[in-house]
Amino acid sequence: MTARDLSGAPVAEAIRQRTTELVGRLAGAGVTARVAVVVATGNEATAWYVRSIERAAAQLGVECQVVDLAGATHQQLAEAITALNEDASVHGIILQTPLPPAVDAAALVALIDPAKDIDGANPLSLGRLSVGQPAFAPATARSVIEILEHYRIPLSGQHVAVVGRSAVVGKPLAQLLLQRDATVSICHSKTVDLGRITKSASVIVTAVGRANLLTANEAGETSVVIDVGTNVNAEGKLVGDVHAASVRPLVRALSPVPGGVGTVTTALLVLHAAQAAEASLQLDPAKGAHMAGRR
Amino acid sequence: MTARDLSGAPVAEAIRQRTTELVGRLAGAGVTARVAVVVATGNEATAWYVRSIERAAAQLGVECQVVDLAGATHQQLAEAITALNEDASVHGIILQTPLPPAVDAAALVALIDPAKDIDGANPLSLGRLSVGQPAFAPATARSVIEILEHYRIPLSGQHVAVVGRSAVVGKPLAQLLLQRDATVSICHSKTVDLGRITKSASVIVTAVGRANLLTANEAGETSVVIDVGTNVNAEGKLVGDVHAASVRPLVRALSPVPGGVGTVTTALLVLHAAQAAEASLQLDPAKGAHMAGRR
Repeated sequence: MTARDLSGAPVAEAIRQRTTELVGRLAGAGVTARVAVVVATGNEATAWYVRSIERAAAQLGVECQVVDLAGATHQQLAEAITALNEDASVHGIILQTPLPPAVDAAALVALIDPAKDIDGANPLSLGRLSVGQPAFAPATARSVIEILEHYRIPLSGQHVAVVGRSAVVGKPLAQLLLQRDATVSICHSKTVDLGRITKSASVIVTAVGRANLLTANEAGETSVVIDVGTNVNAEGKLVGDVHAASVRPLVRALSPVPGGVGTVTTALLVLHAAQAAEASLQLDPAKGAHMAGRR
Repeated sequence: MTARDLSGAPVAEAIRQRTTELVGRLAGAGVTARVAVVVATGNEATAWYVRSIERAAAQLGVECQVVDLAGATHQQLAEAITALNEDASVHGIILQTPLPPAVDAAALVALIDPAKDIDGANPLSLGRLSVGQPAFAPATARSVIEILEHYRIPLSGQHVAVVGRSAVVGKPLAQLLLQRDATVSICHSKTVDLGRITKSASVIVTAVGRANLLTANEAGETSVVIDVGTNVNAEGKLVGDVHAASVRPLVRALSPVPGGVGTVTTALLVLHAAQAAEASLQLDPAKGAHMAGRR
């Protein structure tokens, strides 16, 4: 027996279809969704990722504006974000990490208008998500939910172990899971006897960034495992947090790295941009529609 | 054998001592801490609670200003909060619940300046708490931590089951526990087989508001149990979420209702007011001190 493969590709494709439909409706209202990506560093990985957002947006008729501010000061970045907040033609703002060490990253993300914070970077977005108000979750956290829901993995009343407590994955993911009535255990580097928690869970999500964190010792036969980790191994290959060779033959289902969550996030960012455009439209009472739910 | 009693009284007393010391330091800097309590409803329980805050503040040399707005409109409440935000002599703002049904409670709490949000009502406070930025937690959530730390119950690496996912207790408490390196399981009304989770935890916190939620079937011999529930039973008596008669003989320690968490919260609100005053002082670079950590 081997695990069912929870591949990201069909999930991303379904998200692109939803985006296409939404972009069509927006076009009917005379609106083109637009996302601004603020880039503050010149590194190659960032440039590659930003190009992948540009491509995904272009493919779906969403405009993508790259604001290249490599070498900018904190003040210049703050002014750029404020200008994008005030620009009604911009619906989504992504402040691309990493940021230069000289800037106050916490102060910058706090500037992003929550209505445009399509990658859930502002702590206010996380706070709103936590109390059930409309807010965007970080695309990576949300991608885990999209995969679980696409493959119809039950969440209500189920015990889900989230390994990792970062502000971009573990913590917002825990809130998204609680909204779906899962019982959520948040584990991390200080967790004693990880396997005792993860083996009792029906779904395990690993989001730590450490290869071989989850082995056959920490997974059970009924586990559904979603690997969010991205690590480069000694051979220079991209691997997840899961020791796939030992875990795959054991568990019920596995979302792999590469080919899993990472495949979904970019598509989701573009969907979020379109949803932000829709919400901005619906905030206009003349258009008469209700506020979009973005939980 | 019977459980060790984790009484709130000595915890509250230790908090009052810290407050007295802090109030003394503030007096040396010419500052009197001041909290404003905005009351929007005329009910008796609220009036009783507000008087208890007034008494606790007066006892410790913290000024308490009750802003009685019973019968006020949303707009009037919003204006009152904005005025208190702008009033430099006010360091803490409590918007007393319940609010009248006609007001937009979410919009009102979002107005409270996080620096003055001493009962952690603004979702931004919860978001900041979640990402490790300075923020006040709701006094009830924080009281649980104060009790655990006062009685030197280890948290780092320990498995803590939080039963209840409210914005005032369960969710902020989970963040406070994660900051202290606990492994946190968040359970709630949809949790299947609650006892399987709670029995595997070394600390169980019940914050649901349902009498007899936790019985001997859901607790183990090594459990430390903190009861946050407040319920009125058929005889009109205040009881917690824990069936104390069956749980007390079984577990290692129990914080009771009444006499536990509820005893601590008012003292903590007054401490928060003094801490907010201290932070406002330290934000003034002329005074030369560092920002207070309020995790």
